[in-house]
Amino acid sequence: MTDCSYAIIGTGAVGGLYGARLQRAGFDVHFLLRSDYEHVRQHGLWIESVEGDFRLDRVHAYDDPRKMPRGDRVIVAVKATANDQLPGILPHVVRPGSLVILLQNGLGAEARLAPLVPQCTLLGGLSFLCAYKAGPGHVRHLDYGKIALALYREDGRPGGVTEEMRRIAADFERSGTPVQLADDLVLARWNKLVWNVPFNGLSVVLDADTRQIMQEAGARALARELMKEVVEGAATQGRVIPEAFVEQMLADTDRMRPYRTSMKLDYDLCRPMEVEAIYGVPWRTAAASGRELPRIGMLYRQLKFLDARRALKRGA
Amino acid sequence: MTDCSYAIIGTGAVGGLYGARLQRAGFDVHFLLRSDYEHVRQHGLWIESVEGDFRLDRVHAYDDPRKMPRGDRVIVAVKATANDQLPGILPHVVRPGSLVILLQNGLGAEARLAPLVPQCTLLGGLSFLCAYKAGPGHVRHLDYGKIALALYREDGRPGGVTEEMRRIAADFERSGTPVQLADDLVLARWNKLVWNVPFNGLSVVLDADTRQIMQEAGARALARELMKEVVEGAATQGRVIPEAFVEQMLADTDRMRPYRTSMKLDYDLCRPMEVEAIYGVPWRTAAASGRELPRIGMLYRQLKFLDARRALKRGA
Repeated sequence: MTDCSYAIIGTGAVGGLYGARLQRAGFDVHFLLRSDYEHVRQHGLWIESVEGDFRLDRVHAYDDPRKMPRGDRVIVAVKATANDQLPGILPHVVRPGSLVILLQNGLGAEARLAPLVPQCTLLGGLSFLCAYKAGPGHVRHLDYGKIALALYREDGRPGGVTEEMRRIAADFERSGTPVQLADDLVLARWNKLVWNVPFNGLSVVLDADTRQIMQEAGARALARELMKEVVEGAATQGRVIPEAFVEQMLADTDRMRPYRTSMKLDYDLCRPMEVEAIYGVPWRTAAASGRELPRIGMLYRQLKFLDARRALKRGA
Repeated sequence: MTDCSYAIIGTGAVGGLYGARLQRAGFDVHFLLRSDYEHVRQHGLWIESVEGDFRLDRVHAYDDPRKMPRGDRVIVAVKATANDQLPGILPHVVRPGSLVILLQNGLGAEARLAPLVPQCTLLGGLSFLCAYKAGPGHVRHLDYGKIALALYREDGRPGGVTEEMRRIAADFERSGTPVQLADDLVLARWNKLVWNVPFNGLSVVLDADTRQIMQEAGARALARELMKEVVEGAATQGRVIPEAFVEQMLADTDRMRPYRTSMKLDYDLCRPMEVEAIYGVPWRTAAASGRELPRIGMLYRQLKFLDARRALKRGA
């Protein structure tokens, strides 16, 4: 057991669930909020979860990173679309020696984050979670919940598993969140894209849940082809994803309850979608190695078009 | 001038406009209708057109092909999605020596039509027309109007331009419809797909008109890439479409008024879309020569998914 303090940057479904669990387990947790700040300050957090509901009546809530204590461990759980805000936040909440986890979808964000957190250890985190924010300070957790963690290295090589990683994994496990420690962040991120690329995008473009996609022969074939393009993309960074992994993802999705992806939820709620992190960066990464991923590029452009129209709608 | 009689099979926007013009020019025209039969029998046809409105108070209207006189010239102007009905219609309306025009989008339908019209001359027809059916017997013609005609040959080779084609072109021209006689039906059909493939499909998937697609950089790039895949597809049938043709189509579309494509109109009205004719057949044709067209295949599957859901909705 450690006595580390935790800062949660972005208290949505992901940050809210994991942070609330850590507080429930006895850790000292500090939550940065935006729109929900007043509500959470007064009423705390409410977690409705398949693994048991609980409420935290009082939490340390902040609307300004400058008022937060600098954390031993800082969990960045904003959407990738909000990363532009991190330069105004992170320098206020880390100190030399902090461990920073970027718990986010997509590829390449650690490289942009690293200069903001010098003298810190930076981990990439991936959450395998079906959850959404049901209201202010109110998270609904439907399924799954595992986190994968891997060390970020500027040279892109596998960072291995460190003692520090084992300690944070122990904290999470103690709070009820299973953790998988991965050797290789780049591989872990591509692995996760194998699922995210087909299902996030197709759920938006086809206005469909995972089951509707899996049950229509053509859409299912397209999902598989998109997965294979992710495998090709990973290969341009020297990462080998076995064919069997693709089939495993398809089989897992067949067994899942019908699921509205996080991107579909963002789209339906007129929020920005993580189009660049999940599509733009992987597509350009492969292209930089001379590898064209035509279906990912096409989905990228379709989603960007739809996202731009939503942005107009939000502005109006 | 000829004294030929015309049978119009399918009196929608296309068949209605061209047939009404022929009757206005003095030809003997017979219209096969389905849902609009009673209305047209009583009130005739009403053409609202950029080139001048006109009404035909009385037309020869039929709800049963067996009641029609066998025509010298038979213009098939049903949607490609209704081609399954043609075996029940065409044998009743042609005679040996009839000239049959399949005025339709997409690829490959003539080969399925030919056995139904033995001892006839079969032409493929392509209409370049912005028009839609505004109500029963009521066509609204917004822009363009040219027809291209080319001889069908079972061996797929260019059929050249015959005297019979020149005569029918003269009839159309006299009725106010410009005609381009083409040597090569297969090339003419692929040429038309260069426009139809990007704009029909993307207008549905992105819920957008032509201008919205052209003005967003990524969607515009995607339209060009889809056009280039059509060019690749044509090459698998030995047809060369020059690069400049793609750029010309893009430039023409830039100059067009914002246009809701016919496929988008079908989708919005919950009617079947011409997905097989415009996407499925070209995609499989190229694949049969070992050429994968990934973006066309992807759009095909997306549209098929959306079309199947509309079919469920129609059934409900």
